[in-house]
Amino acid sequence: MSKKTAKEKSPEGLRIIPLGGLEQIGMNITAFEYGDSIVVVDCGLAFPEDDMFGIDLVIPDTTFLEENIDKVKGFVITHGHEDHIGALPYVLQRINVPVFATRLTMGIIENKLAERGMLETTQRKVVKFGTSVNLGCFRIEFIKTNHSIVDAAALAIYTPEGIVIHTGDFKVDYTPVFGDAIDLQRFAELGRKGVLALMCDSTNAERPGYTPSERTVGKTIDQLFQEHSDTRIIIATFASNVDRVQQIINSAYKYGRKVVVEGRSMVNIIKTASELGCLNIPDKTLIDVDQLKNYPDEKTAIITTGSQGESMAALSRMAENIHRKISIGPNDTVIFSSSPIPGNEKAVTNVINKLQMKGADVIFEDVHVSGHPCQEDIKLIYTLVQPKYAIPVHGEYRHLIAQVKLLKELGFDDDHIFVLQSGNVLQITKDKAEIVGDVPVGNILVDGLGVGDVGNIVLRDRQHLAEDGIVIVSFAMAQGSPLTVAGPEIASRGFVYNKEAEELMNGAQTVAEDILEQCAEDGTVDRNRVRNLIKDGLSDYFWKKTQRRPMVLPMILEIDS
Amino acid sequence: MSKKTAKEKSPEGLRIIPLGGLEQIGMNITAFEYGDSIVVVDCGLAFPEDDMFGIDLVIPDTTFLEENIDKVKGFVITHGHEDHIGALPYVLQRINVPVFATRLTMGIIENKLAERGMLETTQRKVVKFGTSVNLGCFRIEFIKTNHSIVDAAALAIYTPEGIVIHTGDFKVDYTPVFGDAIDLQRFAELGRKGVLALMCDSTNAERPGYTPSERTVGKTIDQLFQEHSDTRIIIATFASNVDRVQQIINSAYKYGRKVVVEGRSMVNIIKTASELGCLNIPDKTLIDVDQLKNYPDEKTAIITTGSQGESMAALSRMAENIHRKISIGPNDTVIFSSSPIPGNEKAVTNVINKLQMKGADVIFEDVHVSGHPCQEDIKLIYTLVQPKYAIPVHGEYRHLIAQVKLLKELGFDDDHIFVLQSGNVLQITKDKAEIVGDVPVGNILVDGLGVGDVGNIVLRDRQHLAEDGIVIVSFAMAQGSPLTVAGPEIASRGFVYNKEAEELMNGAQTVAEDILEQCAEDGTVDRNRVRNLIKDGLSDYFWKKTQRRPMVLPMILEIDS
Repeated sequence: MSKKTAKEKSPEGLRIIPLGGLEQIGMNITAFEYGDSIVVVDCGLAFPEDDMFGIDLVIPDTTFLEENIDKVKGFVITHGHEDHIGALPYVLQRINVPVFATRLTMGIIENKLAERGMLETTQRKVVKFGTSVNLGCFRIEFIKTNHSIVDAAALAIYTPEGIVIHTGDFKVDYTPVFGDAIDLQRFAELGRKGVLALMCDSTNAERPGYTPSERTVGKTIDQLFQEHSDTRIIIATFASNVDRVQQIINSAYKYGRKVVVEGRSMVNIIKTASELGCLNIPDKTLIDVDQLKNYPDEKTAIITTGSQGESMAALSRMAENIHRKISIGPNDTVIFSSSPIPGNEKAVTNVINKLQMKGADVIFEDVHVSGHPCQEDIKLIYTLVQPKYAIPVHGEYRHLIAQVKLLKELGFDDDHIFVLQSGNVLQITKDKAEIVGDVPVGNILVDGLGVGDVGNIVLRDRQHLAEDGIVIVSFAMAQGSPLTVAGPEIASRGFVYNKEAEELMNGAQTVAEDILEQCAEDGTVDRNRVRNLIKDGLSDYFWKKTQRRPMVLPMILEIDS
Repeated sequence: MSKKTAKEKSPEGLRIIPLGGLEQIGMNITAFEYGDSIVVVDCGLAFPEDDMFGIDLVIPDTTFLEENIDKVKGFVITHGHEDHIGALPYVLQRINVPVFATRLTMGIIENKLAERGMLETTQRKVVKFGTSVNLGCFRIEFIKTNHSIVDAAALAIYTPEGIVIHTGDFKVDYTPVFGDAIDLQRFAELGRKGVLALMCDSTNAERPGYTPSERTVGKTIDQLFQEHSDTRIIIATFASNVDRVQQIINSAYKYGRKVVVEGRSMVNIIKTASELGCLNIPDKTLIDVDQLKNYPDEKTAIITTGSQGESMAALSRMAENIHRKISIGPNDTVIFSSSPIPGNEKAVTNVINKLQMKGADVIFEDVHVSGHPCQEDIKLIYTLVQPKYAIPVHGEYRHLIAQVKLLKELGFDDDHIFVLQSGNVLQITKDKAEIVGDVPVGNILVDGLGVGDVGNIVLRDRQHLAEDGIVIVSFAMAQGSPLTVAGPEIASRGFVYNKEAEELMNGAQTVAEDILEQCAEDGTVDRNRVRNLIKDGLSDYFWKKTQRRPMVLPMILEIDS
């Protein structure tokens, strides 16, 4: 074992410690430590994996930060997507330090904090592009980038060992819809000065070429509005993609359509973005959903959530005929301005099928561009910055490895590329960089109000229950005696439909009765032993009869005799 | 309601009745009825949807066939894929009629029947391409096609009303690896004679252009063998794609590599295909997995199952480090000769990540071609056959609709296109075609040995248990009395980890005790009422405390007093 824990080796130089976000999509959070200062870049959540039954979301284990609470100077946030800010309301409750972000990013964070009554207790500072904040021995400069959300920033982190640039999620858009293009000059300028390390978005590192400008989607949308001038138009997209919403509104306005916004998250973000001046909606363009009936179909457009087939989102409810105000018909053109996020393909396809069954014309291809850099964009950034060390971030392992391939083409050697795992402590001094240990990391599961109270045992039980259901065997024994005085009563849930499986359950009853009789005969008083006999006996019986393994749960009541 | 059930209107003309397979992938089965004769095309299974917890597979409801058992003359099978043959072993137990299929298709069916000891009791007949079988008033001709499995057939069904052609799953491959190209001449010949209806594969109807020949993949594979001459090569593909396996073996042989076959289904199909002469393996090319160690890596290749990320398949076990004989390392090139089937994307990506983490070079793009016709292929078949009626089949609704778009380009009008739903009875006479009613259809769920014993109630319980777990409240009451004499005992599974949620569960105990005390005071003897009070009281309590809704199951024991 060559690994050492972080505490074994005394801190030296700069330490970059991803606490999440590597080898996975989501839960981005990275600590930068030097001497007595720690700053944390982003604080995101992850969405649960398919086998995390009942889990609402996943947040990072921040034990490392809690143990070093005195050092932590603040959170600096790259942009307002859930995988970069979603864990803040949870983590700030344990680590209450100031939060720094650009305007829209902070607006979205503030919505989250307000929902939980945390605005008062959280120090916040909006940072302008091109300006810096000083946190302990660090200075952090916010650099303009482009992304699928407005106001995304890269961070230049000035440390005593040199400058580290963290791109956040970004794309290179020479003709963005809102605001300026990515500040390539600043990347070049810092590169000229000398950059110690670049942490660069890998999400699209497998894709050749360049990511097209967001404006190309605007052109497609405009064309679709032109072609479908005689139907209602419903467009689903990501709520947070303010630029996309802006372009849809532009086309709707141009062709004289009123716009309805559907879906809570869409309504919220449009409100926030409008207030902050990131979204420009012509007067009298927005109407309430109840006013739809006052306009002919071809004079209305609906912008909606649900582009990922999320079962409770507005578009899915329309497709399922359970939307209270909007029903789909042959006079609807439904446009998916999105690509399915991996894992959502089937859900999206289900919604498409259902919309088509109602007669809608559904358009689901080529009305989207990515918010992440493709291979040539990644090469551009590395060529501008020319860092000493390259640390691919954002994306699954396959994406990190794809960036490594690009780096080798660019001439980086293995010693100057670091593919980190969450928890790794990468220590960089002027002379060298090396992984010197690990800090604890992990998934904290959030289920309803519970944060961390569902762990592996509960999850495993849920998986077991989902697969084969449960059989409960309830009986009463005389205290301190091997005698059963009532029961066994057997009930099952999620196993077989009891009415149709009478024979099977009668057999189970006999098995349980026989076991309890045997216990009485043998004088078996030990309740654990009785429990195990019942469990094993019934499990065997059910396996033989059904080749299924329901959970068997004996419940013993003690009766005073 | 204009729909009539099949029985209301007396049979007239030809009746085409899909019993599954429409609006879904899988479970293909279609009945053709005329007078006192029924023939059934295919008898496939479907794989369970994500929310069908614990279900192994899904088979069609064949009530219609069972109720008309005297008419049913046989099953005619297009090809040997699970979604066309997988339900046979189940359905033949209720409808024991002869099965007709081409050579390899029958070989695969026989493997299935043999596993269940059904060979003796099932009449089977292998049919050669270009020949026909007579079944009641029908004659069925098997026409050579190409597909991702050898020996696929289209069926020309000669009926008193005219010829219906069912393409099965097919592609147009001018240069197939094994056997002849699709018999386009025969399609043309029948078309010239006059075809009443064409039922054509829609799976790829959204894709423009032509589907490339299987041989193009062979070239890619050969090139990969050439480029990766210094590592072991592991190729994952579909077990049933015998042509693909043939091409992999050809390249392995050409470059002097020994071949190991991994995965039970792969081993089985290679055995069957070899015996039937559909696969040609040079002597001494295959070696046992235990012999791998006797050869240098660069002289071996492994053909394996698991290209869809299936958790128990050989490749997944290698990726997870739980394969007993093969471990992955930096000297492995792993090739996915497949595309992820919709819904499997995430599982595939997980396997790719894990293989890369072990240092393997993973190639997962452009080493596959589809087995279904793209738009130009579909147009070709329609142009050769020129049927009076077009009935798009195979594929989800979106794919059927995509074929309809093509049909309109080809000049079909709405009256001559039928997008059917499973259960629809399409009646065709010489004068007209119309949907005249419906027969019962549905999903029969198979779970372990149980066929149909898991229905909606059990599934809903499994979903509930998966989401929030279960809380069991066990107590004993004196017979006929409102008094609780033992308990309540409370246990939970899949809800919270009891040790960490002591306070919550103690609170629940108090709630239950209070309710039972109140029952005693109120003289509530009715057990259903007691049960409901406990259920509601605890559900409310848990929702308030956790915002979760575990299933609450009261178990009452009656004690003689």
